[in-house]
Amino acid sequence: MTASFVSSRYANAPGSPIRELKRFSERPGMISFAGGYPDPKLMDAEGLQASLAQLQAEEFAKALEYGGTEGDLSLRVELALLSNERHLDARPEDVLVLSGSQQGIDLLARTLLNPGDAVLVEAPTYPAALSAFRFAGATVHQIPMDQEGLDVAVLEFALATYRPKVLYTVPTFGNPTGLTLAANRRRAVVELAVRYQCLVIEDDPYGELYFDKPPPAPIHAARNAVEGADEVLIYLASLSKTMAPGLRIGWMLGPPAIRRACVLAKQVDDMHASTLTQTAAARYLKSGAFQRHLPILRESYRDRAMTLFGALQVQFGNRIEMPEPQGGMFMWGRAPGVSAQEWLAAAIEHGVMFVPGSAFFAEDADPAFFRLSFATQDVTGIQEGAARLARSMRQLKLR
Amino acid sequence: MTASFVSSRYANAPGSPIRELKRFSERPGMISFAGGYPDPKLMDAEGLQASLAQLQAEEFAKALEYGGTEGDLSLRVELALLSNERHLDARPEDVLVLSGSQQGIDLLARTLLNPGDAVLVEAPTYPAALSAFRFAGATVHQIPMDQEGLDVAVLEFALATYRPKVLYTVPTFGNPTGLTLAANRRRAVVELAVRYQCLVIEDDPYGELYFDKPPPAPIHAARNAVEGADEVLIYLASLSKTMAPGLRIGWMLGPPAIRRACVLAKQVDDMHASTLTQTAAARYLKSGAFQRHLPILRESYRDRAMTLFGALQVQFGNRIEMPEPQGGMFMWGRAPGVSAQEWLAAAIEHGVMFVPGSAFFAEDADPAFFRLSFATQDVTGIQEGAARLARSMRQLKLR
Repeated sequence: MTASFVSSRYANAPGSPIRELKRFSERPGMISFAGGYPDPKLMDAEGLQASLAQLQAEEFAKALEYGGTEGDLSLRVELALLSNERHLDARPEDVLVLSGSQQGIDLLARTLLNPGDAVLVEAPTYPAALSAFRFAGATVHQIPMDQEGLDVAVLEFALATYRPKVLYTVPTFGNPTGLTLAANRRRAVVELAVRYQCLVIEDDPYGELYFDKPPPAPIHAARNAVEGADEVLIYLASLSKTMAPGLRIGWMLGPPAIRRACVLAKQVDDMHASTLTQTAAARYLKSGAFQRHLPILRESYRDRAMTLFGALQVQFGNRIEMPEPQGGMFMWGRAPGVSAQEWLAAAIEHGVMFVPGSAFFAEDADPAFFRLSFATQDVTGIQEGAARLARSMRQLKLR
Repeated sequence: MTASFVSSRYANAPGSPIRELKRFSERPGMISFAGGYPDPKLMDAEGLQASLAQLQAEEFAKALEYGGTEGDLSLRVELALLSNERHLDARPEDVLVLSGSQQGIDLLARTLLNPGDAVLVEAPTYPAALSAFRFAGATVHQIPMDQEGLDVAVLEFALATYRPKVLYTVPTFGNPTGLTLAANRRRAVVELAVRYQCLVIEDDPYGELYFDKPPPAPIHAARNAVEGADEVLIYLASLSKTMAPGLRIGWMLGPPAIRRACVLAKQVDDMHASTLTQTAAARYLKSGAFQRHLPILRESYRDRAMTLFGALQVQFGNRIEMPEPQGGMFMWGRAPGVSAQEWLAAAIEHGVMFVPGSAFFAEDADPAFFRLSFATQDVTGIQEGAARLARSMRQLKLR
């Protein structure tokens, strides 16, 4: 009865398939490559607790008050500095603080899209972005990728055909592929976006997590290099993968009129990100502890990635196709002739988990794809997990 | 140019008139009765800081991780207990934790309303709720109030005429009126809501702030007393007015299908309320400090309310009409023959501020109304502020 009050987009929406895997991940002894979140053991909890403990009583009291929707100035200063290390040329007043960068996707979807508007995404892409666009009533079209990211020729065709309002991309160590858009393609994307007047929402939660060398500058860095680009480029970033997801802090850079619309939408949503967590994050950033901690994260994730990649090479040889990871948290594989969904069922019996790739496609999913996260298991767990993956696939072939 | 990317509802939306008053409130010596927020000096900052400081390293680290969209169990337990003190008969699993109760209004607007759906609100009402309904494309109709709250006869007429999907009400020490819906009318509202199948969104941020005697039980308490009521009653509450707004913690009770839709919308918005602030709030509630602090709040706000009410009686006599406040943070007045907007301009020159009532109407505002908040000034400031209000009105009459 009550369900009829809910509008159809929400009443008929499926839950997140990744979240639905969570109950299996809680089984004793399970080795999960499924979760797309940082290893809690690698967060600098001590440093963050110290940042809060050092607040004077008066400063703490201030951190309990209402704040402006755009975010607290002390944090906007620090996030502008972080942005500028990424060549983004941001001033504090250009920064809109978000309650996680996911919120930025949702605010943009709500303020930019009218039902029926076309949106382009990568194939595969981040499922919660897909959901946000669909809840806004958009029609989503997928652009294929190769090892260097988005296929720019197809992108141009889609821009001309669908006249989309938005291109959503995770161009640096993307979720789920771990792939990075090549520098020359970044420039091409900017030029196409200007030519076709399509907004580019660049989602960059993983860019700091490079293994050997820094990735190309964000797409947003071309804002002042290409005429008109400043009107179509939007940048989203997050502290969730590098500092702590529980703080719920992300930020947006972009054209003022678009940020203003997002501020209006956020005013009636959560009003502002928690003043307390903004204060903790600003203090921690200002102390320099974040910059000291990043190399530890990069090294740990590189070790894990290389361990998993190496173990899979040994266990599977050329039975799976998988590019070598350069950063981020994810590896994206394909097991030709295998249904990843069936493989997952067998894998769970063997005490190991991953996410079948179909969750990451808007349509026409190839069932042989799968995503592995190397972020949350230590090296020993990764080796055992890889062995279980191999055993579970052997079992599968025998069925 | 870029503005054209923004959909028209947001591109043409005005900013909050209350927020736009903020720059005046920052003038040195200004006595503001404008802000609708608790006095920071009355927050138990020490107790909240202690709750965080007492966390063991391991507990603090846990508070930095991702959490479930519905909220952390330890907080849901405490919020269920708080709800049950209000006779709401809630279990922890019935509680959806929000990033402030404002977010609940927005999630409901987004998941329930289709463009053109009718929504009923009180006249006057909370402006950010109006905005949330309008951003969702709803058509808003106002129901007049008297000293006992919503006019139930008009409500029935409007239910029959507009067949609205939602009635939004702040029935207890409401914003902006400070008025409370009488107990017999609460029952009538429930019966009408069931008969006309209209959802009731009951927003209750102020109910704990009573002066002398507790208010009637929330509308939601009739959930099991009237057949079918459990399918149409939704309850929103907040820790912002009683604990600390900077935590951004509120909660929702309501039909499971509606909460599920809100969870889907929240998953792609901020994912979950900050784990850190949820942990702080849960600890603080569990310690009993919140219950010990509430009487201090009630007494302070009563003193302030009575001081302001008494001073205005002395200064204005029957030149203004204003009911005696019984709780909450607000007094709602009418100065016959006066434009509150013009009065405000004069008042600002005299170093005192309030909010003209027109901000709280969806349409047809009577320009003589005004809202005063007694929450953020101490007794001395209130007396001086009342004197300045009287001087500024005298000046106005001389113009």
